[in-house]
This record gives sequence, C-alpha cells and structure tokens, in this order.
Amino acid sequence: MVIVMAHNATEADIKAVVKRIETLGFRAHLSRGEERTIIGIIGDERRLAGVALEALPGVEAVLPILQPFKLASRIMREEGTVIRIGDVTIGGDTIQVMAGPCAVESREQLLRTAEEVRKAGARILRGGAYKPRTSPYAFQGLEEKGLEILAEAREMFGLLVVTEVMDPRTVPLVAQYADIIQVGARNMQNFFLLRELGKVDRPILLKRGLSATIEEWLMAAEYILSHGNPNVILCERGIRSFETYTRNTLDLSAVPIVKHLSHLPIVVDPSHGLGKWRFVTPMARAAIAAGADGLLVEVHPSPAEALCDGAQSLTPENFHKMIQEIEKVAAAVGRRI
Amino acid sequence: MVIVMAHNATEADIKAVVKRIETLGFRAHLSRGEERTIIGIIGDERRLAGVALEALPGVEAVLPILQPFKLASRIMREEGTVIRIGDVTIGGDTIQVMAGPCAVESREQLLRTAEEVRKAGARILRGGAYKPRTSPYAFQGLEEKGLEILAEAREMFGLLVVTEVMDPRTVPLVAQYADIIQVGARNMQNFFLLRELGKVDRPILLKRGLSATIEEWLMAAEYILSHGNPNVILCERGIRSFETYTRNTLDLSAVPIVKHLSHLPIVVDPSHGLGKWRFVTPMARAAIAAGADGLLVEVHPSPAEALCDGAQSLTPENFHKMIQEIEKVAAAVGRRI
Amino acid sequence: MVIVMAHNATEADIKAVVKRIETLGFRAHLSRGEERTIIGIIGDERRLAGVALEALPGVEAVLPILQPFKLASRIMREEGTVIRIGDVTIGGDTIQVMAGPCAVESREQLLRTAEEVRKAGARILRGGAYKPRTSPYAFQGLEEKGLEILAEAREMFGLLVVTEVMDPRTVPLVAQYADIIQVGARNMQNFFLLRELGKVDRPILLKRGLSATIEEWLMAAEYILSHGNPNVILCERGIRSFETYTRNTLDLSAVPIVKHLSHLPIVVDPSHGLGKWRFVTPMARAAIAAGADGLLVEVHPSPAEALCDGAQSLTPENFHKMIQEIEKVAAAVGRRI
Amino acid sequence: MVIVMAHNATEADIKAVVKRIETLGFRAHLSRGEERTIIGIIGDERRLAGVALEALPGVEAVLPILQPFKLASRIMREEGTVIRIGDVTIGGDTIQVMAGPCAVESREQLLRTAEEVRKAGARILRGGAYKPRTSPYAFQGLEEKGLEILAEAREMFGLLVVTEVMDPRTVPLVAQYADIIQVGARNMQNFFLLRELGKVDRPILLKRGLSATIEEWLMAAEYILSHGNPNVILCERGIRSFETYTRNTLDLSAVPIVKHLSHLPIVVDPSHGLGKWRFVTPMARAAIAAGADGLLVEVHPSPAEALCDGAQSLTPENFHKMIQEIEKVAAAVGRRI
Repeated sequence: MVIVMAHNATEADIKAVVKRIETLGFRAHLSRGEERTIIGIIGDERRLAGVALEALPGVEAVLPILQPFKLASRIMREEGTVIRIGDVTIGGDTIQVMAGPCAVESREQLLRTAEEVRKAGARILRGGAYKPRTSPYAFQGLEEKGLEILAEAREMFGLLVVTEVMDPRTVPLVAQYADIIQVGARNMQNFFLLRELGKVDRPILLKRGLSATIEEWLMAAEYILSHGNPNVILCERGIRSFETYTRNTLDLSAVPIVKHLSHLPIVVDPSHGLGKWRFVTPMARAAIAAGADGLLVEVHPSPAEALCDGAQSLTPENFHKMIQEIEKVAAAVGRRI
Repeated sequence: MVIVMAHNATEADIKAVVKRIETLGFRAHLSRGEERTIIGIIGDERRLAGVALEALPGVEAVLPILQPFKLASRIMREEGTVIRIGDVTIGGDTIQVMAGPCAVESREQLLRTAEEVRKAGARILRGGAYKPRTSPYAFQGLEEKGLEILAEAREMFGLLVVTEVMDPRTVPLVAQYADIIQVGARNMQNFFLLRELGKVDRPILLKRGLSATIEEWLMAAEYILSHGNPNVILCERGIRSFETYTRNTLDLSAVPIVKHLSHLPIVVDPSHGLGKWRFVTPMARAAIAAGADGLLVEVHPSPAEALCDGAQSLTPENFHKMIQEIEKVAAAVGRRI
Repeated sequence: MVIVMAHNATEADIKAVVKRIETLGFRAHLSRGEERTIIGIIGDERRLAGVALEALPGVEAVLPILQPFKLASRIMREEGTVIRIGDVTIGGDTIQVMAGPCAVESREQLLRTAEEVRKAGARILRGGAYKPRTSPYAFQGLEEKGLEILAEAREMFGLLVVTEVMDPRTVPLVAQYADIIQVGARNMQNFFLLRELGKVDRPILLKRGLSATIEEWLMAAEYILSHGNPNVILCERGIRSFETYTRNTLDLSAVPIVKHLSHLPIVVDPSHGLGKWRFVTPMARAAIAAGADGLLVEVHPSPAEALCDGAQSLTPENFHKMIQEIEKVAAAVGRRI
Repeated sequence: MVIVMAHNATEADIKAVVKRIETLGFRAHLSRGEERTIIGIIGDERRLAGVALEALPGVEAVLPILQPFKLASRIMREEGTVIRIGDVTIGGDTIQVMAGPCAVESREQLLRTAEEVRKAGARILRGGAYKPRTSPYAFQGLEEKGLEILAEAREMFGLLVVTEVMDPRTVPLVAQYADIIQVGARNMQNFFLLRELGKVDRPILLKRGLSATIEEWLMAAEYILSHGNPNVILCERGIRSFETYTRNTLDLSAVPIVKHLSHLPIVVDPSHGLGKWRFVTPMARAAIAAGADGLLVEVHPSPAEALCDGAQSLTPENFHKMIQEIEKVAAAVGRRI
C-alpha cells in the first residue's frame, strides 16, 4: 500500500501517518519526491482492508499495491484448478456445455429439454427452481417440486444438474438435489449466502454481478474459498452498460483476465449476456476462442411459450447447430467438447 | 404493450401474434404503418411480465407502455406517503437526518456518537451490526451484540434506530431492535429477503442497487409493498459509473424523478455516494434543495480509527456544521430540519 | 509515479526498470516489501505521459501519483478564478444564468426568447447556430445567419451571447459574434479545436464529455489554458449511465469536486442533464446548493414546436418561476442571482 | 413512432396531439387501452427527428419504432458490403489484419515495423501521424512528416496505409497519403469532420465512440454515407465501463449485432479494447470467432520505448504468433487470413 501525502502536508502530518502505520504493526518507508512525499507500507496490506488511512490529516490518496484476493489468486496456485464430478471435468481440456431452460416449468417441459440437451452431447443440465424475478407479479418458480423434476431428469438421462440457490435457508435442500450450485448475478455479494456455500460439499457456479469489477468478483469467490469450499467456477454473464439494444454487455475479456489473475475455471453465459437468441451462437464461438472452459446456455422446446427468458432461449434445433459450430472452434484452440 | 413486427414479417406471422395475444386473454389492435405493422395489446400488461412475445417469428421488438410497478406508483396514491414513528415523520415537512457510524464497533464508540448526533438535532441513529464487506478479511460486524448496543443508545438518548439486515434468517431478531430496517444496495434484489420484510411491522429503508435503474428500484419496493408492508423509504446512495475519483456517483436526479413516479419518501446518503467526507456537506445541501425527505450520514468520533468507511465519515464537529448549513437550504425550499 | 513490480520479477528486471527511469532523466527510489518491490520515480511525472513503463518485463502496474493537470489545478492558484466580461462576473458571488433556446430557429423565436430571458433577470443568452445532430436528417442549424440573429438580440436586450463552435475553421467567425464560446460535450476531446480556442480572446465554456472522468475534463481545460487562453468555464451537463428514464445522469458531485481540484468556475446544465423540463427546476436548485457558479438552461417560447430539444425546454413562465426558486437557494448559500 | 398518453390525459390533449401529427404531414392512429391511449404515427418517422412531441400536454412518452438509420441498414442492402482496394477486400471471405504502431515516431521505427507486419502476412499498415492525446504535454505526432514516412513504407513493402484524421482542414492532405482514413473514437460524432469524409474518395474506418450505443455509431456512419461516400468500415475498439483493470471493455457482441443490423463490414481493435498486450491475442481469436471481418492491432519493434500505447503493443514476435493462432480460428468459421 502506498500513501500519497498532499502537496501541503506538514512534517507533523507525515509523522502521524508513520506512527499510525507502526501502531498497526507495519513498517513505513518514506520516499520524498519533488512535489509529494509518498509512504510505502511494508507488510500484508490485506490486513488493512477497511482501515481508513485516508482520514488522517494531509493524506491525499491511498493506493493498494497487492491484489486483495489470496486463495483465488493464480499466485497461490500456478496451474489451473480442474474440478471433477464423476467423469466430468471443468477446467481441463474438455469444454463443458451446461444447457436447459431458464426455469423448470413442468415435468414434460424439463424432460423433453433434458433429452434434447443430452442428445446434442451436453453433460450438464441447467434449470431454475427458485425464480423470483424483477417483477413480483411474474412466475416465481416451482421451488422444491422443481428440484425433484431436475433430479428425475438426472436419473433418466445421466446428466449432472446445476441449479440456483438464493436463500441461505434453502442451501441444504438445494445441495441434496444439485451437482453444482449456482449463485446468481444479483447474489454475488450476498455474503451470508456465500458463507453458507463455503461449507457445502458441492462446486459453486458463481455468476458475475451486474456491475461487478473482476476484482470484486474474485473477492466473492474468496469468500467461498476462505470458508472452506475450494471448488468455485466463475461465470461471465454480461455486465450492465449504457447499451440498450441487448439485455447486457457480454464481457468476454473477463475470460483471459480471469485466467491470468486466478486459477479458477471460467464459463460464459451468452444467453443472459445478450438476451436475444439470435446472437447466442456467435458469442458462444467467441467465448470458446477466448479460452472459456465452458458455456451456460438456455434451451427451451418452445421459446415463445416459455414462462421466463424465452427471447434468449435456443430451440433444440438451434442448440444442435451451436454445438456443431463450437466443436470446430474448440479444435482450433486445442480443446474438445 | 406494443409489438413491432419486422419489416419482412408475413401475414401469417401477424396472425400468429394476434392469436397468441388472444390466447393469453388480451385483445390485439393492429396499426399498419408504411414500413411496419405494430400491434397494441389491450389489457393489463403487468400480467405479461416474463412472457416472451419476442420469441414469436416476425417480431422485432416488444415495447412496454405501462409502468411495471403499481403499489409504488403515484398514480395509485396522489399525495405522498408520510411515515410516522412516534413523533417522528418521514416524508412530511420535516427533513429527517439519520446519522451515526458505518459499523457499531464498541459501546463507547456508539454511545459517544449517539450523544453528538442527538446534540446536533438528529432524531435517528444509524449503525451497522452485520457488516460483511467486500473482503472476507475485513471487520464483519458485532452482530447481535451490536444490536444490543444500538438499543442501549436508543434508550439513553431518545433516538430511533435504523440498522441493516442482510439475511432472511435474522429478520425477526433485527426487527426486535430496530425502528427502521435497512436493506443495503447489494441486497436490493435479494427477493427472499424482500418477501420477509414485506411481512414485518417496521418501515424499510431500501437502498438503491449499485447499478439499478429507478424502475428496478421501484420494483424492489413493490416486492415489499405487495407482500404487505406499506412503509418503504427509498434511499439514493450513489450509482456505479466510470468515474474513479469518488466511490460512487451520487444521482440526485433520482430525488425529483422518484417524487414524480412514486408516493414513497426518499432520502439521500451522501457519505456512500461520494466516499470522501470533504464532499458530504455540499451534496447534503444539494439533496435537500432537490427535494429529499432526509439524509443518511456517517459520523464517527475518530474517523481515522474507524473499522469501516472512515474516509467518508464526518467528525461530530463537521456534522454540526453540516446541520447548520442544511437548515438554511431547508428553509429556502419551505421545509425544516 | 510508482512502479509495482510483479511478485516474480527478477533482480535483472528491477535493475532494467531503474536504468530506464534514469535514462529518462529521473531518479528511482526502491522500496522492498514482503511480497513486492515498488519503485518510486522522483521528478515531474507529467513528462512521462505516454511513456510505457508497463511494457518493461516484470512490471505489474504503474500508478500515477500527481494530478496530470497543472494550469487547471487549484494548487497553481489557490483563490478561484473570476472571469469578467463587462460588468458580468463568472465565478464570483453572483450566480449567472445563461438561458435561451437549444437552436436559433428564426429571428422572431430568438428575439422573443431573449426578451423573456432578460426580463427574468438573466444576463447571458444561449442559442446554437451550428446544430448538426445525431441524425443527419434532423435540423442542422442556421449557421452564420443564426450568429447574426444572436448579435441582434445582444444589441436589443443588452445580453451577452454564448454559442457553440464545432469546427476549427469557424472559430474566427464565431469569435466575432460570441462573448463566450461553447465547446459541446461531443467535442470535449476535439484537440485541434481546443488548440484553436487556446489562441482566442474569448472565455470558453467547456462542457463535460458524455463519459469523461473529471480528470479528463480538466485535461481538456488544460489544453486550452496551455495554448494561451486562461478563461475556461467548466459546464457539467450529465454523463451517460445505464439509466434510461432520463437523457443523461446529471452528476452534481462534479461541482464540489471541481471546486476542490481546480480554480476554474463551474456551471451546470440541468436541461441536457435530465432531458425533461419537469425536472429542470429542482436540479437547478440543487446545483446552486452544491456550489455551482451558474446555470445553462434551455428556454423556448413554444417548446412543442421547437426544432431541437423541446422536451427539455422551459416555457418563459416556468423559467421565471425557476429564477424565483433559485434566488432563495442562492441566498441560503450566501450568494445572489 | 408511438405516443403514449399519460393516464390523466384529457380528450383535448389527445386531439391536440393528433392535430399536431397531421399538421406535420403524418396520419395518426388511436388505440385506446384500459389504462392508456396510445397514438401511432403513420409515415416515415425519420422526418420527425428532433420534433418534440413529448412537450405537448398529456404526452407521457414517445417511442420510436423504426431504426433511425437508413443507408447503413441491412434492410437497404441484404448482402454485406465488400470494399475493394486493389486486390484487398474488406468484408469478404478474407479477414484483413491492419497492424503497426500507435504513432509514427521515426522513419526507422515505422519501416522496421512495416517490414515485420508484411512478413507476418498483413496487407494493411496502421500508424498515426496526428496524435494529440489526453495530455497536452504528451507526444503529439509527426504530422505531415509522419504521412510521408507512411507513404514510403507503402511503396517499399506493398502495404495499404490506414491513418487517422482529426481536423476537417487536413482531410485533403491525409486523403493524398492514406488508402483508408480512420476516424478515432473521440471524433465519432465530430459531424463537420464526418461531412467532409462523406465527400472523399477513400474508405473510412469509423471507430466506435467511447460510450456510443450501436445505434449512434450507425448514425455516425449514416452521416458519411448520406454525404456521398458508400465505403465505411466500422471498428469496435472497446467501450467505457466501470472496470478499471483494463483500459476499455471490448464489446465483441457488437460484431454479430452490427452484422444483423447493417451491411457494413466491421473490424475489431483488441489493442485499444484491452490496453494490455497480454490479452490481445485471445481477444483477436474471439473477434474472428464472433464474425469480425478484420483486426486492427498495434505492433511496435520495442514497446517499452514507444512514445504512445507501448503497454498494449505486440512485439513483432508476438504478432507472428497471433497470426498463427487466428488462422486456425478463421478456418474454423469458414474464412481465411
């Protein structure tokens, strides 16, 4: 951490800062420039999270030097993490496609989708059982009944199940049914939920918050990791920008950046990222080319009748075509579906 | 709701859309322009939330016409809501200042702050007992012990208490201690929490999410209102923008816009909005001039030693000065502190 | 400037950075922390603008310490700049209101507006003669004819004229007619235009770019100042955010921040900032309360027939009311209209 | 265009809107819903650009229905535009790589880069002669001397030259030297410059503005097209977001969206989009996979000594590797380099 003193800071101000640093158990290192004095803090600055050195007289700015995340950092673990669930790996050479409807609407709808998804080669089925949405007047999900249907689909088609949890109270229940537990974008910084998920024996798919920086996202992962669960899969799903033509702005640059800063696997959700089915396949190709470890894609047997996110759902036919296209791109970057 | 058909939509496409609209229990009204046909939907479009008419062939766009919120809308209630807690009113002629530290750190710290805040004329004490922060390695709050200290301060100084809840499991506990329950920006769309708060007999202070549109914010209020709690106070606390000099970008235009669209009272938090104490007072003045019903301000007896948000906390002395300045502005807009 | 070396930087990397710094005529100052080495650069880092020390092996980040602007900085000039044009001052105790239509549409329209604006007490008339807009198919302005009409209004009503220039080729022509030359948001970084305006003997009203940070905005002012023109008035006019209800998001926090960082006067344009006339008056009040030195407001005798920006224009009647309201707020903050 | 009347609009308000529409030469079409009346406007709404129907009493909102661009729209031209310069095509099966330094710094630097770029297979050389930057104290470019050096490189290595123009006064000069004229992000809405470029016999590379929506970007292209120049190449170069780790947020979703809305070719600049050389190659791969027609990449023989943008420049060696990687991805999507 580097403290920049104001141009008119006094010697007494500087001494007071040094003293405060030493009181906190760190060493201070002064560097007097032509216009400013700066003070380096020697020690693990993560222990200073939340300490307000800016509030001391004469301090102009406090610049962090170290990454605030530790367990999520690639420095801690040079090779990438590969998560294994049975014979499925996430983060290895094989790219995993997680596909299914936004919400479980009925047994028929889910089983039909699961069958199509399996036929196209996907190994992981997605589907929401808890679906409170922006409007309290919209469909809110089948809740436990939805989880049961997902479990049935798993048995019938040999798929793994990923589904979202939103409430710390239902974590044990969801963990009974899910192979991977999803944290939605709106809950990326729901810290009490993250703590519970740190104690669960299931990999967590952690979606990026709507306006979360990559650092904040990795800090959310750090919450889960530091509470004991080492298996976090990051999921880029679009950020909020000024653009109104699409639902979100899919930030594919997050893929190589996360790969550089962290050892955790990362997948991409082009369905939420764009919000329009027409653009899902080209962005799925691009995600794979950027280095993503997998995709999360919405598929619905009849998008126009979906109770949730129909506009961004692929038909089974379009999903098959998408798989064919990404297989070629995966091969071009030395991977396979 | 208006459906815009693509320029190359066929007659069959148009008929299919009309049929779908009628199946859903609405009437369709066609308008054939020179380049496009548009189809108006007659009926309460809120019942269409989540229905994906965009997924039908030949549909280019679906434009909502009505505000999606109902109970929060000023159309429902022309005069503004005034919330009363004992002899304190929020939303009336008197501007309420809610002040105190970011976090309850100790009995001494809180009682000293409470005394100063009361002396300066504020009627409501703020202070966080549950404070999980961006970093899992930072101070996380005193939890129930913090609530007890808040209650003690209330008794000693005759203040009302506003404090945050983050977990649906602790809603009953927090409701025992708090006069107003705060929902933080990161939980604005924590729908299970909102549902619980809809059942509680306490006014809710609902902070705007970091990148929430005003419409989404009012929809979050709608969740609380529609679950039975009519007393929601909105709190603008800064949105995320590209600016890096301040912590957030305080959006004061939210004040007159919310007043236009909704009957709910709105207060402003210039401490989080700016993140630097130096700018809190001018923005507090501006908030009052814009028409805000109150302020939420961080005050700490010794900001440089605060465990949380010291850089944005006013000293008691600066807080007194702020009160003096806003009194004049309040008078200029026909209100009082 | 502080250079943060990567955790795995070698001694050779560090030496190479030091050598490069010294070759550039600066001194290097090392500080070895527990996890990283940081290197302080002693000297005027502004001379390093554009030098890519990040490209050296082993460098993780380069953190600037000094403000990149010099002439615009309050450090250069502690008291605020007051610009005088005849008996009108900008930046002093008197708040200046600049008012008039978006575009000069006709002699009648402009003279009528000028008369109303003068009657309400404003001293400066605004009006655009060059108005190319987002659409090439919209009204593009009366050009020189518009300038002539503005000059006529000046003579008739004793008003100063502020009008925009967009093309370096028309700077001399506009300077003949205008008392203050405006640079629009879209041209804030039109550097060849800024250079020309640095050579002109007229104050410049420099609007903030749609997504410009405050630092970039002050750097644009620095262009004008460093080319010889000391009279720059900054104008906050709203930034682009994710909000869609208003045209822009008016960032009033820019007012106290600019006052802290710079000695230049700052005015606020609530008309463009909101885009809806209904919200102009409350935000004008808030701007004055925040400390703004003036306002730029759109007024049109018949907004619904305006060729440009009618939705955000006040009628003369509403403009009169606005003046009455801001007079009270100005008094509350120790200023006058 | 659809006009939404307020819930409390009177019959007189509705009649006045209809009358105004008819006066403007359009037909009105009423649709009375349960809560609102909406009025459709029959006719080419582009002629209404700038007309403020929102300013009429009782109007709540005005919703455009048609795309505001015409010549740039795919509706006007179903097959994509292919631009031909000699034997080089942009927008066809071959992906074009435009590469070179940010700025022409010296004859030696440019010729050396040109040679490497040519050797790697690129056909188009980039390099800036006019380089005023955010700071007036940074290197500002070699101006005409730079253009001469570019022309020399063209002759020596058989490359086409793309270089930026920023000032309408230098358009004729730049057009003498350049094969493709670039408009920078900061000038995307420099309308007088766009008009001049509409009259020039050279293809224009139009960069997306820092916070431009895709619609605004296509409207900027429309300016050039409607002034007579049919050859516009769009260039996505990153938008401004809240993320601070990278210089910009590269919006690859712009590629399929532009392909859907427009017939114009689109290329991607991953160098500016990320600002860090390390991420250029993965994002170049992703751009090709998304469907881009080409790349704009910064290459410098010695990035750490570059006067401009060194941190984002590839060395010649890394550029060669990038070409090898994108060749495979191009093949996977049925194209070639």
